[in-house]
Amino acid sequence: MSIEHPYLLFLGDAADPLAAKTAQGIAHWRPEWCLGQLRLPGCNADLGLTEMSLEQAAEAGARTLVVGVANRGGVISDAWVAVLEQALPLGMDLAAGLHNRLADVPSLAAVAGQHGRRLFDVRHPTREFQVGDGEKRAGKRLLTVGTDCSVGKMYASLALEKEMRAQGLNVDFRATGQTGILIAGDGISVDAVVADFISGAIEWLTPANDPDHWDVIEGQGSLFHASFAGVSLGLLHGAQPDALVLCHEPTRGHMRGLPGHALPDLKDCLEANLAAARLTNPGVAAVGVAVNTSQMAEGAAGDLLRRIEDELGLPAVDPFKDGVAPIVARLG
Amino acid sequence: MSIEHPYLLFLGDAADPLAAKTAQGIAHWRPEWCLGQLRLPGCNADLGLTEMSLEQAAEAGARTLVVGVANRGGVISDAWVAVLEQALPLGMDLAAGLHNRLADVPSLAAVAGQHGRRLFDVRHPTREFQVGDGEKRAGKRLLTVGTDCSVGKMYASLALEKEMRAQGLNVDFRATGQTGILIAGDGISVDAVVADFISGAIEWLTPANDPDHWDVIEGQGSLFHASFAGVSLGLLHGAQPDALVLCHEPTRGHMRGLPGHALPDLKDCLEANLAAARLTNPGVAAVGVAVNTSQMAEGAAGDLLRRIEDELGLPAVDPFKDGVAPIVARLG
Repeated sequence: MSIEHPYLLFLGDAADPLAAKTAQGIAHWRPEWCLGQLRLPGCNADLGLTEMSLEQAAEAGARTLVVGVANRGGVISDAWVAVLEQALPLGMDLAAGLHNRLADVPSLAAVAGQHGRRLFDVRHPTREFQVGDGEKRAGKRLLTVGTDCSVGKMYASLALEKEMRAQGLNVDFRATGQTGILIAGDGISVDAVVADFISGAIEWLTPANDPDHWDVIEGQGSLFHASFAGVSLGLLHGAQPDALVLCHEPTRGHMRGLPGHALPDLKDCLEANLAAARLTNPGVAAVGVAVNTSQMAEGAAGDLLRRIEDELGLPAVDPFKDGVAPIVARLG
Repeated sequence: MSIEHPYLLFLGDAADPLAAKTAQGIAHWRPEWCLGQLRLPGCNADLGLTEMSLEQAAEAGARTLVVGVANRGGVISDAWVAVLEQALPLGMDLAAGLHNRLADVPSLAAVAGQHGRRLFDVRHPTREFQVGDGEKRAGKRLLTVGTDCSVGKMYASLALEKEMRAQGLNVDFRATGQTGILIAGDGISVDAVVADFISGAIEWLTPANDPDHWDVIEGQGSLFHASFAGVSLGLLHGAQPDALVLCHEPTRGHMRGLPGHALPDLKDCLEANLAAARLTNPGVAAVGVAVNTSQMAEGAAGDLLRRIEDELGLPAVDPFKDGVAPIVARLG
């Protein structure tokens, strides 16, 4: 698909900063793509970007108005539609990662058609995939896997891409979720693919490449999440990873959305991922652990990272606080 | 959905008996539902059922004309449409498990609408599912799992249902693939479900039931198949099986459709399934092995079954030749 940048980020009437976390992720990881922000009255989120009207953004060269805000139930309100509609004749495409599709709003579909503009609903795959074939592809691949959902796999992946690029490696981030897709400009929302084609979709997303090229692939879910493990396993097989980075949030009391389901032991989780990954790449190796310690006191966080390093024999870092250089140092 | 029986089985212009294997499966497992067969000129399959015209079948009370034949590319030919169209005004619904949908043939959709008849495209789910929640449900469940695709999981499941019912157990077969759905009259083609909802779809298919009730759930794919393992894992988690039966075809040189990919060792395969199943049912146990020995000489087959029994400490049978009573005897 390839969403064109630069972007104008639409924050709408975000109830709080968390509601605009998609926009926040884009602004954090792709600041050079973000010309400014557009907020409606009552908006309680602020990314600190230049406030821009649609006309100012168009003047400055914005190619896409990105809906960077989520609302209850994924509904696209009339107040939003009124703004989104006006962006199209000014030459901007629209992109969103909501459950409800921009393309299903009749007036947006009509105006986009009139002006030859595109509507990107990145949560919904727009192409068909082949069944995966498991054949070895040239190039190298790193996949982030998790003890649970929402433990920082996307953040760790983007931090790895940034550090690898800074060190001169040939690398691309490969997005598998809606925020990642808006950050990358393309990708596949793998949990929305038909079940038969999970691994095939990931093979398509990470095709054969130069022998020294790295795909850093955003993982989804967890092999230990009773709702989503099928997605995680298909993604793992399709990715054929050479390197795994295990991601973890140490303060969580139970698996996300599943009270009563405990998180797996880190070593068990890593071993299960390695065992499954060997099916399509017998040479897979774990290269590090990314721990989101934002909910922990400084000293306790440091102690935990050292304990994990001792137990697993791998570098353990908080990507946000420490960066990921010790992990990148392990990539051959 | 619930497809109504009795059925008239449509064999079309089947190129050979294998092309009509769906009809053959229905006639084998639900002979009491099958009034007869309808064949077109040039048909090279014959199930030995009474030959019936549409009018004769309608007269005899047929409720559904089932397309029990596959053709190249899943195309629904004009010759077929001409026949299928005529069944609708005679009071029959249509059911098929083809890739192409009956409902996408304009004349079938139109005639069905006029006469208030239903078109069942069982390969395509028609409802939305919830995300799985992994919560323990009342009742007992048995799942067939495989070393590979197409090793006899549906056959073993139906043989288990039949034997369990014969022994007076409270049991239902739960279909997860198109032929199984036509045999059961309902079910979910799980590989066609959106990836996020694999385990949720199976939770819906096998809901809480009487404490002594058994669901015998048709497995799909294999945890060791690089194309489809995601489906198999989501199915395993959603099923929450109390009992696993491992299915195997011992003469296969490589994983189906994946030259160069060896089949897993039986013990490794069983252990991997048990380990994964414990996530949603820590009490899961293996109860037997179902081996399709149709490609082996009699003596060699017997030797193999005894070797498997020794190695795994479980009854090993060929369901077709030996029945499954030794496995059913293991169910508490």
